[in-house]
Amino acid sequence: MPVLVMKFGGTSVASLDKIKSAAERVASEVSAGHSVIVIVSAMAGKTNELVGWVNETSPLYDAREYDAIVSSGENVTAGLMALTLQEMDIPARSWQGWQVPVITTSAHSAARIEEIQTENITSKFKEGMRVAVVAGFQGVSDTDRTTTLGRGGSDTTAVAFAAAFDAIRCDIYTDVDGIYTTDPRITEKAKKLNKISFEEMLELASLGAKVLQTRSVELAMRFNVKLRVLSSFDSPEIGSGTLVCSEEEIMESNVVSGIAYSRDEAKMTLISVADRPGIAAAIFGPLSEAGINVDMIIQNIAEEGRTDMTFSCPTDQVLRAEKALNDAKSEGEINFSQLVADTNVAKISAVGIGMRSQSGVAAKMFRTLSNEGINIKVIATSEIKISVLVDRKYMELAVQSLHDAFELEKVAE
Amino acid sequence: MPVLVMKFGGTSVASLDKIKSAAERVASEVSAGHSVIVIVSAMAGKTNELVGWVNETSPLYDAREYDAIVSSGENVTAGLMALTLQEMDIPARSWQGWQVPVITTSAHSAARIEEIQTENITSKFKEGMRVAVVAGFQGVSDTDRTTTLGRGGSDTTAVAFAAAFDAIRCDIYTDVDGIYTTDPRITEKAKKLNKISFEEMLELASLGAKVLQTRSVELAMRFNVKLRVLSSFDSPEIGSGTLVCSEEEIMESNVVSGIAYSRDEAKMTLISVADRPGIAAAIFGPLSEAGINVDMIIQNIAEEGRTDMTFSCPTDQVLRAEKALNDAKSEGEINFSQLVADTNVAKISAVGIGMRSQSGVAAKMFRTLSNEGINIKVIATSEIKISVLVDRKYMELAVQSLHDAFELEKVAE
Repeated sequence: MPVLVMKFGGTSVASLDKIKSAAERVASEVSAGHSVIVIVSAMAGKTNELVGWVNETSPLYDAREYDAIVSSGENVTAGLMALTLQEMDIPARSWQGWQVPVITTSAHSAARIEEIQTENITSKFKEGMRVAVVAGFQGVSDTDRTTTLGRGGSDTTAVAFAAAFDAIRCDIYTDVDGIYTTDPRITEKAKKLNKISFEEMLELASLGAKVLQTRSVELAMRFNVKLRVLSSFDSPEIGSGTLVCSEEEIMESNVVSGIAYSRDEAKMTLISVADRPGIAAAIFGPLSEAGINVDMIIQNIAEEGRTDMTFSCPTDQVLRAEKALNDAKSEGEINFSQLVADTNVAKISAVGIGMRSQSGVAAKMFRTLSNEGINIKVIATSEIKISVLVDRKYMELAVQSLHDAFELEKVAE
Repeated sequence: MPVLVMKFGGTSVASLDKIKSAAERVASEVSAGHSVIVIVSAMAGKTNELVGWVNETSPLYDAREYDAIVSSGENVTAGLMALTLQEMDIPARSWQGWQVPVITTSAHSAARIEEIQTENITSKFKEGMRVAVVAGFQGVSDTDRTTTLGRGGSDTTAVAFAAAFDAIRCDIYTDVDGIYTTDPRITEKAKKLNKISFEEMLELASLGAKVLQTRSVELAMRFNVKLRVLSSFDSPEIGSGTLVCSEEEIMESNVVSGIAYSRDEAKMTLISVADRPGIAAAIFGPLSEAGINVDMIIQNIAEEGRTDMTFSCPTDQVLRAEKALNDAKSEGEINFSQLVADTNVAKISAVGIGMRSQSGVAAKMFRTLSNEGINIKVIATSEIKISVLVDRKYMELAVQSLHDAFELEKVAE
């Protein structure tokens, strides 16, 4: 029987009623002749509750204990989903990461999947089981400790299972009905896209579009997993969602497909760093070891052998970043006069595959922001995206004006 | 280093503050030179929440999924306790059942511990870990599925670890300061006992005294584990609790040491059963297979080849018991005209080792109840206890009058 992977996010399993609705969607895929692997998140709010307890108990927590605690939310949903399916007379059982097993690295709280062993689940499918309900977001290290893949990791779990089981498709059920040109809460002109390329989705995901986790898109791209994002709440007939697929499957690319934003990026500046060869490595080495996801980097022009170094990182990593840099300073590896964290910023990004063949996109973006009187603090570009850091108070205005400037309300649905 | 086992129940870890208080008790035992194994329950209320979800989802649930879901509460507490200890600079880590591993039978929701493998934890103690925080109540079957030991199973986990690690003592921290002659909420005359024998404790536990789980006392008795019950909330100087120990360590036994009661016992009557050899086996075989804990049994005198059979079982097993008996009926194994469940009863028991050598205890018990106008529905006796089933409305009155009749307010503290 062909395997289909279906993933339900936290809002899609937020209550017993919602779990039941989700189970009904699973049931109809079972009736259609699929063996289904269901990946579930924790019930909405549960993970935040657990993370809150961890942070209150131990601000610089042992990530191994964080993982042991936080993974419990998914275990609960997996069991409840299995029971719900059994009540519908569908043979189903739950699987936790260590039971599958989903083998990951030991990088707790940000582990990477190394291998999904398919034998156990496959043999249950052969015995007549129709649905394997798998707790998303978690795995097990080679020392038998529970690991997690980082927030939103259930998407990655879903895609990895789709790849490992050679699934016909990976359907990501969530609280939105697809991928939009930007967040509809910021502008009513936002439009749903029918298709988007892996590359664009990858940029949007990493830029703060919360619909899909970055790594899940990377994985889908690498293994060419057909990924569909759709709503748990629309009736199945309407909600065909957005298909994330390879570039070749999209007839005409947009210059800009979407405007993304993120409040969760902080700007950190090391003031008066000794400017010497290898200084960047000395700064970003310790940050990397501490697991800090550095995004944008700017180095000012040096004066009198000293310079300022600015970078951005997720706001929830600021404490760790400060610790890593101060430790490196006290060990004499780097030298700076001051470390300033500015969490009052937002990152705005324009993304589109068409940028590759069309010039002037950056200029248009800067001009648009300038016309609105918005000062750009940091710029970063890639082949298919341009990102800027601005004062947070201008975030909405920036998104709206860029959405207008690139005429995204006219994008073909 | 000598190993001490400390177990904290749900109310003792009900909040982060309470986990911290518990951790401080652990810290002082670490300072005193012990290697400590801490067994934790789920935060108060959490298990009930999870059980509620399971029952709502699937009234006759798959116990394997029940276990997968319900065990998550202990995992959360174990991680939080480990983090709290780490914050106090005490090397600690959490262990889930499958990680230790705690090998159990596959009797889900009522599994029995078969083996606790001590190698992993012992080697961590050798590496400098001072506290192993173990999620109570859970284990793992030989097919790698999570099992639970039944409600209150964390006590059993604690005693089993004390036995496996040859601990100097097993301290059960709870919300009461020891074992009382009866529930102080029912009569103010209830007195705390300084010592109680394993045998008496065993009867009291199985009769509804909620302080210790029956199986934990059985285990402690078998392996002669020194078991101490004490309060998490008293200051350590005052709260020496009650020591549960072998009979030889108690100078003078009481005729009656305690009066126990239980609201959780239902009376079930099979009306007009064909009275033939093997009928008891035909009735209680299916009940046993369905995991029903039958307690008292009465068979009426047969008339015209038919009889009534009455038994008691926990109220939460009534549905299952009915199903098992009706199934047996439809399969032709037994024959009865009607099955009546009466959940409006209470069980009252008097327990004391002194009963062995003193006669007239039963007579005194029946006379006392009769004087209060309380009708006895079912009687069951053992060497050191007498139990009766009465209408639930008389429960408090029965306990108070028996506590008076056996002069338990005069019991030596």
